[in-house]
Amino acid sequence: MDRTKPTAGASRPVRVRARTLGLVADKYRPGKYNAITDVGGVSVGHATVIHGKGARGGGRGPARTGVTAILPRSGNVFDERVMGGGFVLNGAGEISGLTQVLEWGLIETPILLTNTLSVGSASQACVKYMVRKYPEIGGEADVVIPVVGECDDSWLNDIAGRHLKEAHVVEAIESASGGPVEEGNVGGGTGMITCDFKGGIGTSSRRLPPEEGGYTIGVLVMSNFGNMDELRVDGIPVGRELAPLYATYLKRERSYGSIIAVAATDAPLLPHQLGRISKRVALGIGRMGSHAAHGSGEIVISFSTANSIPRKTRRMIYRMKALIDTRMGPLYRAAIEATEEAILNALCMGDEMEGVDGHVAPALPLDIVCDIVRRARPAPSRT
Amino acid sequence: MDRTKPTAGASRPVRVRARTLGLVADKYRPGKYNAITDVGGVSVGHATVIHGKGARGGGRGPARTGVTAILPRSGNVFDERVMGGGFVLNGAGEISGLTQVLEWGLIETPILLTNTLSVGSASQACVKYMVRKYPEIGGEADVVIPVVGECDDSWLNDIAGRHLKEAHVVEAIESASGGPVEEGNVGGGTGMITCDFKGGIGTSSRRLPPEEGGYTIGVLVMSNFGNMDELRVDGIPVGRELAPLYATYLKRERSYGSIIAVAATDAPLLPHQLGRISKRVALGIGRMGSHAAHGSGEIVISFSTANSIPRKTRRMIYRMKALIDTRMGPLYRAAIEATEEAILNALCMGDEMEGVDGHVAPALPLDIVCDIVRRARPAPSRT
Amino acid sequence: MDRTKPTAGASRPVRVRARTLGLVADKYRPGKYNAITDVGGVSVGHATVIHGKGARGGGRGPARTGVTAILPRSGNVFDERVMGGGFVLNGAGEISGLTQVLEWGLIETPILLTNTLSVGSASQACVKYMVRKYPEIGGEADVVIPVVGECDDSWLNDIAGRHLKEAHVVEAIESASGGPVEEGNVGGGTGMITCDFKGGIGTSSRRLPPEEGGYTIGVLVMSNFGNMDELRVDGIPVGRELAPLYATYLKRERSYGSIIAVAATDAPLLPHQLGRISKRVALGIGRMGSHAAHGSGEIVISFSTANSIPRKTRRMIYRMKALIDTRMGPLYRAAIEATEEAILNALCMGDEMEGVDGHVAPALPLDIVCDIVRRARPAPSRT
Amino acid sequence: MDRTKPTAGASRPVRVRARTLGLVADKYRPGKYNAITDVGGVSVGHATVIHGKGARGGGRGPARTGVTAILPRSGNVFDERVMGGGFVLNGAGEISGLTQVLEWGLIETPILLTNTLSVGSASQACVKYMVRKYPEIGGEADVVIPVVGECDDSWLNDIAGRHLKEAHVVEAIESASGGPVEEGNVGGGTGMITCDFKGGIGTSSRRLPPEEGGYTIGVLVMSNFGNMDELRVDGIPVGRELAPLYATYLKRERSYGSIIAVAATDAPLLPHQLGRISKRVALGIGRMGSHAAHGSGEIVISFSTANSIPRKTRRMIYRMKALIDTRMGPLYRAAIEATEEAILNALCMGDEMEGVDGHVAPALPLDIVCDIVRRARPAPSRT
Repeated sequence: MDRTKPTAGASRPVRVRARTLGLVADKYRPGKYNAITDVGGVSVGHATVIHGKGARGGGRGPARTGVTAILPRSGNVFDERVMGGGFVLNGAGEISGLTQVLEWGLIETPILLTNTLSVGSASQACVKYMVRKYPEIGGEADVVIPVVGECDDSWLNDIAGRHLKEAHVVEAIESASGGPVEEGNVGGGTGMITCDFKGGIGTSSRRLPPEEGGYTIGVLVMSNFGNMDELRVDGIPVGRELAPLYATYLKRERSYGSIIAVAATDAPLLPHQLGRISKRVALGIGRMGSHAAHGSGEIVISFSTANSIPRKTRRMIYRMKALIDTRMGPLYRAAIEATEEAILNALCMGDEMEGVDGHVAPALPLDIVCDIVRRARPAPSRT
Repeated sequence: MDRTKPTAGASRPVRVRARTLGLVADKYRPGKYNAITDVGGVSVGHATVIHGKGARGGGRGPARTGVTAILPRSGNVFDERVMGGGFVLNGAGEISGLTQVLEWGLIETPILLTNTLSVGSASQACVKYMVRKYPEIGGEADVVIPVVGECDDSWLNDIAGRHLKEAHVVEAIESASGGPVEEGNVGGGTGMITCDFKGGIGTSSRRLPPEEGGYTIGVLVMSNFGNMDELRVDGIPVGRELAPLYATYLKRERSYGSIIAVAATDAPLLPHQLGRISKRVALGIGRMGSHAAHGSGEIVISFSTANSIPRKTRRMIYRMKALIDTRMGPLYRAAIEATEEAILNALCMGDEMEGVDGHVAPALPLDIVCDIVRRARPAPSRT
Repeated sequence: MDRTKPTAGASRPVRVRARTLGLVADKYRPGKYNAITDVGGVSVGHATVIHGKGARGGGRGPARTGVTAILPRSGNVFDERVMGGGFVLNGAGEISGLTQVLEWGLIETPILLTNTLSVGSASQACVKYMVRKYPEIGGEADVVIPVVGECDDSWLNDIAGRHLKEAHVVEAIESASGGPVEEGNVGGGTGMITCDFKGGIGTSSRRLPPEEGGYTIGVLVMSNFGNMDELRVDGIPVGRELAPLYATYLKRERSYGSIIAVAATDAPLLPHQLGRISKRVALGIGRMGSHAAHGSGEIVISFSTANSIPRKTRRMIYRMKALIDTRMGPLYRAAIEATEEAILNALCMGDEMEGVDGHVAPALPLDIVCDIVRRARPAPSRT
Repeated sequence: MDRTKPTAGASRPVRVRARTLGLVADKYRPGKYNAITDVGGVSVGHATVIHGKGARGGGRGPARTGVTAILPRSGNVFDERVMGGGFVLNGAGEISGLTQVLEWGLIETPILLTNTLSVGSASQACVKYMVRKYPEIGGEADVVIPVVGECDDSWLNDIAGRHLKEAHVVEAIESASGGPVEEGNVGGGTGMITCDFKGGIGTSSRRLPPEEGGYTIGVLVMSNFGNMDELRVDGIPVGRELAPLYATYLKRERSYGSIIAVAATDAPLLPHQLGRISKRVALGIGRMGSHAAHGSGEIVISFSTANSIPRKTRRMIYRMKALIDTRMGPLYRAAIEATEEAILNALCMGDEMEGVDGHVAPALPLDIVCDIVRRARPAPSRT
C-alpha cells in the first residue's frame, strides 16, 4: 500500500499543531500528548491509502482515503467492555453500531473511521478480525456489531472505487498504539476537507486539575465539514477574512460535510452522562463554524474507561463508580475545548492535497490565521 | 448457490399461512396478497443460502442464511425518494443507515435484511450495486448509505463463516417483484427462529375501508425473537401449552433474539407520522410475546410511497399531501394487526430446519395451535 | 371534600382484584400486596374529588377527579434522589418534569397523577409543599420541577372547572403510605375510563425468585385508554365478545385515551436500564389492547430505589451497584406482567360511575370476563 | 403591578441593541424589527413583576420576575395549528407541553416563558384563559396542554414566593402584538442573568435573499446561562477579558443556568425539519459561550407558520408545502446567526438590577465590549 504523501514542494511550509502556534487560549491544560491517547489505555492506529492521479474512474482511483482505528481499551475491549454513549447532532451520516452502543451503554469493539462507501468493507473486515481473535463469536459468545463512522471524501478520493481493503483495516487496528497520534492527511482523514481547507484527523485532550477530579478527557475527530467563511479559531471569525483570499478555490458546488468525533475519558461516567458529554462535543463543533449542513453527518460517540463491564461473569451485580452529576461542569467545558482544538489540529496538520480530477484542497494558511488571531487578542498574550 | 430446502420427510405437514388456518380474527381485511407488496410499487426479493451439514467451523458452514431485499419503489428510489421513519424498541441490534433515515425522513436505497455478521458485506454489495446503477454516486451525486437490518441466525447458521456473498445481494435486489412473497425459511429469514420454533420471513397487509381512507399498510418481518412459553397467537397464550410439549428442544442457553420489521403504506404520512406507525408495529411485536430481551434487537423502519421527493430538482418547494393526524387511528390498529399476522406467517410458513452442530428448530405445530385457538374462541367462529 | 362513591345499587356486584378472580396466569409471583408498594420505601396516597351531578358547566361540576401521589422513597427523596428513566410511547399527553428526569436520570420529587387541565395546579401545589418542607429551595438549594402526569377524564368530569385544589395535592402526598393501595375510582383515577369500561388506578407487582436476583418490580397505572373491542385479558381478546353486548354504551365519539404508568424496582438499575424497563411497560400496555391512539398519551416513568444519590455531598464519586445487563431478562418479563395486571386491576376494581351530562361508564362485567377466560384456558386451570 | 425599572443613575449608560453598536457582522440581514415578530403573524407580550427590596423571604419578595407570551399565530392558534418541533440540548429544565409538540408536530397554545417555580401557575392560568376563550375545551373539543418554558431567576428573585399571578399571564397574552419587542429586564426575562451579566429577553431575525427563498426566521430567548469568562461576542472571546474586571461580582456559587429559545419561521418546514432547525439554535447558544452546564436547561422550540393544520375539518388529507431538504442550509445558518444576536440583545438591553439580599447583576459594559470587538476585526469594518 502506497502511503506516499503528495510531494511537498520546497516552498510548502511545515505543518504545526495549533498549540505550538499559540492559537489556543483555553482554561484547561492538555495531557502529555494532547491527544485522545492521554486517556489511559486508549490507542489509535491509521492506515492511509494514497495512489493514482488524474481523472476519477474505472475503479483505478485516484485513491485518497484510509481508515483510523480507536481502541478504547488497550487490552480486551470485547471481554472488558467500556461504558459508551453518543449524540447525533446531524444524522446525515452514519456510525454503524451506534444503535447498540446507545441501547446497552457499552462499547465492545474497536471504533473505525473511514469514508462513506467503505463502511460496509470496514465493518466486514472488523468482523473477520474479531472472529479470528475471539473464535467464540457467533458460537459460545454473542455476535458483534462493529462501530464504524464515516465522512464523504469524494472531492479528493475516488470513493466509488472503494479502495479500502480488509488489510487496511487490520493494519489500522494492529498498529494502534498509545502516545502521539499522527494527524492531518492520515487514516480515515486522508481525503477529508474542513471549511474548504484540507482537514482530516485531529486530536486534543484536557486534564482537569486535582480539585476538579484530575480526570483526562480526549477527543479525536475525522473532520470534513463546513464552509470557509464560517471558520472560527478560538471563536475569532477568521473565515470571513480568509474567504476572499481563496475565492478561486471556492468552486465546490456540493456541501460535502460531516464530522465524526470520538471522546474518551477516565472519569467514571454512566452512559447517560456520556451522552451529555457527547452533546458538549457537538457544541465545540458548532463553535468552530459548523452549522451542521443538511448533508453533513455530525455524530459523536463517547466512552469512559473507568469502569469495566465483563462479558463473562457469574456475578449478577457489578460495583462501579460514578461521578456526581454536579461535578460534571469542568468535563463539559474541557470537552468543548478539546473538540475545538482537535478540529483545529486537523486543519493545522492537514497539508495541501491534490485528488481526483485535479481537485486541490489547500492547507490552512497558518501565518495568516496567526496574524488574525494575534490581532484579536489583548496585547499581553494569554496563551 | 444452493437453495435446496431441507428434505421434507413424508410425514412433514405442509406449511400454510395463518389466515388459511383460521388463526386470524382481526378487524381489518388484508390486501390482495396479504403482503407488503399490496402497497403499490413495493417489491420483495430473496436470496437463500443453504449448504453443508454437521459441525460448525473452518468457514465451511453449514450455511443457513440469506438476504431479503425490499424495494420501496419499483422504479427509482434513489431519484424519487420515499418518506421514511422508524423506531428502536430495543437497540441490541442494527439497521445500518437508520440514523440518516431518521434525520432526513427519507429512504433512497433498497432495504436489506440479513444476518448480523453479514451487515457489512450486504452494505458493501449494495453500494457496489447502486454505484453501477447510478454512476453519478460519489461524483455529481451524493454518496449513499444503504439500509441493512440484521438478526442473529447463529444457532442454525455458521454465522462467523460469512457465507453471504455479493452475488446473493444482487440476486435479492434484482429478483425483487410485486405479488406474493415467499415466507418462512427464505432470504434473510432462512436461519431465523421465533419463540423457539422455526421463524424467518413473514408478511401481511391490511386495507382500510374507503370511509377510513382506503389506504393499504403492509408489514414484512425477519422474525427471530422470543421464548416459546411467551408465544401468543391472536393474543391467546398458546406458548404456555406448547412449552411443556417441547421440553427436550428448549435447550438453547442464549437468548438469540431480534426482529426487524419493515412497514410500508400508501397513506400520505410525514416522517414523524411514520415514526408513530413504527411504534405501533413494536406493540404488535409485543403482542406476539416478545419481551424485547436484552440481546434482542427489535427495530422498525417504515415508509410511505404517497409522496415522492425528487433528488434532482430546481424547485425549492414541493407540494405534498399529508394525512390529518386525527385520522391515523385505523392505520395504527391496522399496523398492529399486520405485524401480528406477519410474525405468525413467519411461524406458520417456517419449516423445521437442521443447522450447525445438529441443532434442529422445530416447525410450529399447526394442528395443536389451531386446537388451542379454536377452543379459546366463541363457538360461532368470527374469522 | 366529598369522597362518596356513586351509590352502589343492591344488585351491583362487589369489585374484586383480577388475581382473586383467577384471571392471571403469569410466570412470576406478586409481592405481598401485589402493589407498587411492595418495593421497599415506596408509598402511595390518593385524594378523590367527587361532587355534583348533572349537566357540566359554570365551574360547578360535576367533579369526578382527584390526584394520586407516588413517593419513591418514604424518607427524603429531595435529598436522597432515586435513579429514574422513562419512555414516551405516545406523547399526546404530558408528564411535566420528565425532561429533567431523562436528562439527569434522577427523581427528586413526588410523582403526581391527575387530570390534564389540573397539571398546572398540581405542579404549583407540589412546589408550595416542597418549599414549605425544604425552605432552602430557591435559596441555598436548587429549584425543583415536580413530576406530574395526566390523563383526560372529561367524559365523566367537568375538567374545565378545575376542581382539583391545592389541599387535595397535599392530602395525597401526606396520606401516602406503604401497604395495600386503593384502586379503581380513586385519586387521579377517579374519572378515568379504560376500553370503554370504568378504569382508574391499578397496581401490581412481581418478585423474582432468588436465583434471578430476588428483586421486586411494581407498576401503578392511571389507566384511561382504549376501545372495548380491543381489550385483551391475559392476551385473550375478550373485548371482541364484550363489545356487541355494550353497543348502547359505545356512543363516545372522541378517543379520550392516555395511560400513565409508574414502575418502581429495588433492582439496582442505571437510568438507561430504567428507560429499557419503561419500554417493556409500554409493551404490557399494548398487550392489554392499546393501539396508542392518536390523542392518547402513553407515558412511562420508572425508578430504582437501590442507589441513593445525595444532593448534599462533598464527595465527587459515589459508589453504586448496577445489575449486569444480561441479567435483566426476568425484570423485563416481570415488568410486562405487572403492567398487564395493574391495568386489569384498574378495570376489575373500577366501579360503574355516572358523571357529567349523565354519562355512565359501566364496570367491567367480571362474570362474563371470567367465563371467556375460563373457556380459553386448558381444562386443568393453571392460575 | 409595579413595572418600574431599577432607577437608572445619571451615569448609567443607555442600553442599546447589539446591531446599533456594530457588534454584529453576519452574513444575512435582519427583518424589519430584527425580532421574532418579523415572521408574519407572530406576536409577543410581556408582564413584568418587580416589587420589594432587601432580604428574601416570607413570600414578600423581593420580586424580580414575570412572564413572556409568544403567540405563534395572531389569529387562532387553537383552531389553526402551526407545525412545531424542538430539541433538548440540556434537559435540566422544562418546557411543559413539549412532549406533545414533539409527538404531534403541532403547537396549539401560546408559548409562555417564566421562572421555574411558576411553571404550574402559568400553565394553570393559560388553561383558564384558553377555556374562557374556547369554551368547547374539555367538552366538544379536546383538552389542551400549554407550552410553558422556564429558567431559574432565584439569584435576583424571591422565586419561592411565586409572585407570578394569573393576571400577569393574561396580561402577557392579551398585550401580545407584532412589531418591536421589548428586551432585557422584561417579562420572563426580568430576573435572568447571562454569563454573570444581566440578561433576560432578547430577539433577532434574519431574512433570506429571494434566491434562497426569501424566508424569515426569528428567534426569541429567555437567556439565563453561562459564566462570564466563557462569553463570546460574534465568536470573539470577550469574556476572558471581562472576567478579571468583574472579580468582585463573581461570587455566585451555584450555576443557575438555563436558556429557553423559541424560533419561528415562515419557511414551510415539516416537524422533523423544525427539529433540525432547533439543533442549530442550540449551536448558536454554544457559540455565545454556553457549555450547557449541569443544572442549566437549554431547550429549544420551533414552529413554522407556513402551513395551517385545522382542528375542525371533515377532510382526511391536507395539502401542504414543504421545503426541499437540500435548500435548508441558509435557514440553518440564519438560525444560528439570529440566536447569537438574540442572546447578545438580551445582554445589551439588560440593565443592571438589584434583587434579593442585595444581589446585583451588572449590565454588560457595552463600551468595553465594543472596544474588544473592534480590535479583533480587520480595519475596514464589515458591519
